[in-house]
Amino acid sequence: MTHIPHSRNNLLAPPPRLLMGPGPINCYPRVLNAMSTQLVGQYDPVMTGYMNETMALYREVFMTQNKQTLLVDGTSRAGIEAMLVSALEPGDKVLVPIFGRFGHLLTEIAERAGAQVHSIEVPWGEVFQPEQIEAAIKQFQPKMVATVQGDTSTTMLQPLAEIGEICRRLDVILYCDATASIGGNALETDNWKLDAVSVGLQKCLGGPSGSAPITMGERYLEVINKRRHVEAGIRNEHHYAGEGSRIRSNYFDLPMIIDYWGDERLNHHTEAASMLYCARECAINLLDEGIQSCIDRHKVNGDAMLAGVQGLNLTPFGDLQYKMNNVVGVYIPQGVDGEAVRHQMLHNFNIEIGTSFGPLHGKIWRIGTMGYNARPDCVFNTLQSLETVLRRNGHKLGLGEGVDAAMSVYGK
Amino acid sequence: MTHIPHSRNNLLAPPPRLLMGPGPINCYPRVLNAMSTQLVGQYDPVMTGYMNETMALYREVFMTQNKQTLLVDGTSRAGIEAMLVSALEPGDKVLVPIFGRFGHLLTEIAERAGAQVHSIEVPWGEVFQPEQIEAAIKQFQPKMVATVQGDTSTTMLQPLAEIGEICRRLDVILYCDATASIGGNALETDNWKLDAVSVGLQKCLGGPSGSAPITMGERYLEVINKRRHVEAGIRNEHHYAGEGSRIRSNYFDLPMIIDYWGDERLNHHTEAASMLYCARECAINLLDEGIQSCIDRHKVNGDAMLAGVQGLNLTPFGDLQYKMNNVVGVYIPQGVDGEAVRHQMLHNFNIEIGTSFGPLHGKIWRIGTMGYNARPDCVFNTLQSLETVLRRNGHKLGLGEGVDAAMSVYGK
Repeated sequence: MTHIPHSRNNLLAPPPRLLMGPGPINCYPRVLNAMSTQLVGQYDPVMTGYMNETMALYREVFMTQNKQTLLVDGTSRAGIEAMLVSALEPGDKVLVPIFGRFGHLLTEIAERAGAQVHSIEVPWGEVFQPEQIEAAIKQFQPKMVATVQGDTSTTMLQPLAEIGEICRRLDVILYCDATASIGGNALETDNWKLDAVSVGLQKCLGGPSGSAPITMGERYLEVINKRRHVEAGIRNEHHYAGEGSRIRSNYFDLPMIIDYWGDERLNHHTEAASMLYCARECAINLLDEGIQSCIDRHKVNGDAMLAGVQGLNLTPFGDLQYKMNNVVGVYIPQGVDGEAVRHQMLHNFNIEIGTSFGPLHGKIWRIGTMGYNARPDCVFNTLQSLETVLRRNGHKLGLGEGVDAAMSVYGK
Repeated sequence: MTHIPHSRNNLLAPPPRLLMGPGPINCYPRVLNAMSTQLVGQYDPVMTGYMNETMALYREVFMTQNKQTLLVDGTSRAGIEAMLVSALEPGDKVLVPIFGRFGHLLTEIAERAGAQVHSIEVPWGEVFQPEQIEAAIKQFQPKMVATVQGDTSTTMLQPLAEIGEICRRLDVILYCDATASIGGNALETDNWKLDAVSVGLQKCLGGPSGSAPITMGERYLEVINKRRHVEAGIRNEHHYAGEGSRIRSNYFDLPMIIDYWGDERLNHHTEAASMLYCARECAINLLDEGIQSCIDRHKVNGDAMLAGVQGLNLTPFGDLQYKMNNVVGVYIPQGVDGEAVRHQMLHNFNIEIGTSFGPLHGKIWRIGTMGYNARPDCVFNTLQSLETVLRRNGHKLGLGEGVDAAMSVYGK
């Protein structure tokens, strides 16, 4: 077998990229530092204290009173799967409104859980109106509506408050994946009557992928608690084997994960302590800034980037009144090689902008301003470098008009 | 909602515990440092370079030529579930030899995948003889044998070389969870004919929980590749929807994860970059020391701890010829409150030793010497503090006999 040379040659020293794509983005320095903190034991009162603190912090982040607010150990997709597989029994009906790639993902995960999935679609670049959701609920009579809030594949943000009202009135569980939106756009779990929400750290929360904060309300808990079981290897005479149909996954069995995070601390997985330190720090960082201040910062920097790309004679993608604050889609101008531009941005300027998926592949770039990188200097540097690259690739634009347009958004 | 006071009060400053339980343990400092490295983008050539490098490094760690050697983003349990759910179709027969808690876990996960599980058991503290496995295979005719190598719940290490031969001869897939043993005990994937192996970082590899390295051989791949699908949201005309029965999990769909780590880089999850940096560093750290040197170090420090607890007039648990190098079970002496001892060790000396699960709960402590903590000073400090605590809790022992016995193992 080939021996990889270690030590000197394998020093971990990546180039200092400025990550202005749709996420992941550069982490806040304090979040990175948190991960280099030494561990304590899994049941050490210090560790369980951090777990409780993390629950309390994420209640604030999610704007909820939900006791069951905790972390799933995996990427944001792990949080989604835990939410769906714990609630959906084979044959259960679920409605998925699809307005981008991640709606397809919800469909796929729900299907694998054995659910009967009904999906409705709008073209990429649009969102649903509440009456469309209401009509579909009445038609399909689902147990759950599963939707994305912000879909980075299209940059669209689905309004949720009215959908929450509709689901409550029609007695349907509403689950939402808010990974791409949280921290940079309003997300009010309790006010909007969202029954279950999952997120990730790698967008506006300014951490790396690898931990999925989730929150579960009473109506969602009622569904999953019917399926509560205790693992054979650790069951004793006080425990029971459960009565509902067994959840198809052990790792994503939320009633078990709740027992692990709860007072009884029933062993499930070994909590990923470094990622917990990280998730905790992401929440503290957000709450220190203030949720509304952080959203406002994403709004102004997002607006500046939007004005900037328009100043570069580029056309933004999608229905802008529903655009997420933290990412903009930009049509690749005719005659310009989109991948060549991304390549030159990365290799000449250490700046990453995003490509696209599915029907938008090769048609738009996606440029993010999120978390640590929702800053004027990041916006200006990206626009200046993009100007240089576009100019040298034959795109017609006026000198300095991108960065000037962005500066005027800040009143400069 | 209660507002948690942030900043000053929420400074992440855990006490400097010495973690001498069955894992997790203190991380190597270089591994902690790796996690505070800033990110690069998900498809940045630097990142995909790190992914390829991580695959190559873990081939060495697993002692295999298997191309498909990569990380599952989750705890070691995530690796186990990915292995089982990707291979086992509903109704498939799997044989699980149970010699501790984690055998029960394999059973539970396989059952949830819809498999028909046949388990055989030996009393906790023992392991299986090859002929027992062979007889059970002949009786049940399983598609797969799923076993743990080292089970921390009992401290036992199941010999695997002969079982590998048997499974190959009888055309059965052999999957092994080596989380607790790898790095501190021999594990030779190819030499022993193991078809699939999964591990975690939080034991002898000296990292935190949260990433699960796995390796997959040709025979295992043949089984899972029949179930390969490409996700709807990213499928194009060159892709296919798959022919075998769909894997019940999206997150743990190994053919998809292989496509993500492969040349095509088909998007699946967003790789948990900080945990990848960490897993990579754990591997480099091990290979820098040398696998055999690291095993030898675990052996001598484990032997010293064993001699030390015997010197403290304590009785070790289980069949010592099959004990893992990195953990020892110790009977709680009569008249001594096991939890009081653990509490005093933790709060007076900042040293954690482990409690136990299931039938051993309240009967034994488990004391680890693994990873960064497989060091003489950790052994000596633990034994000295344990002597003080035991003496003050009424256990009869001779002054200094624990630490002296340990010192003599090192020839001091």
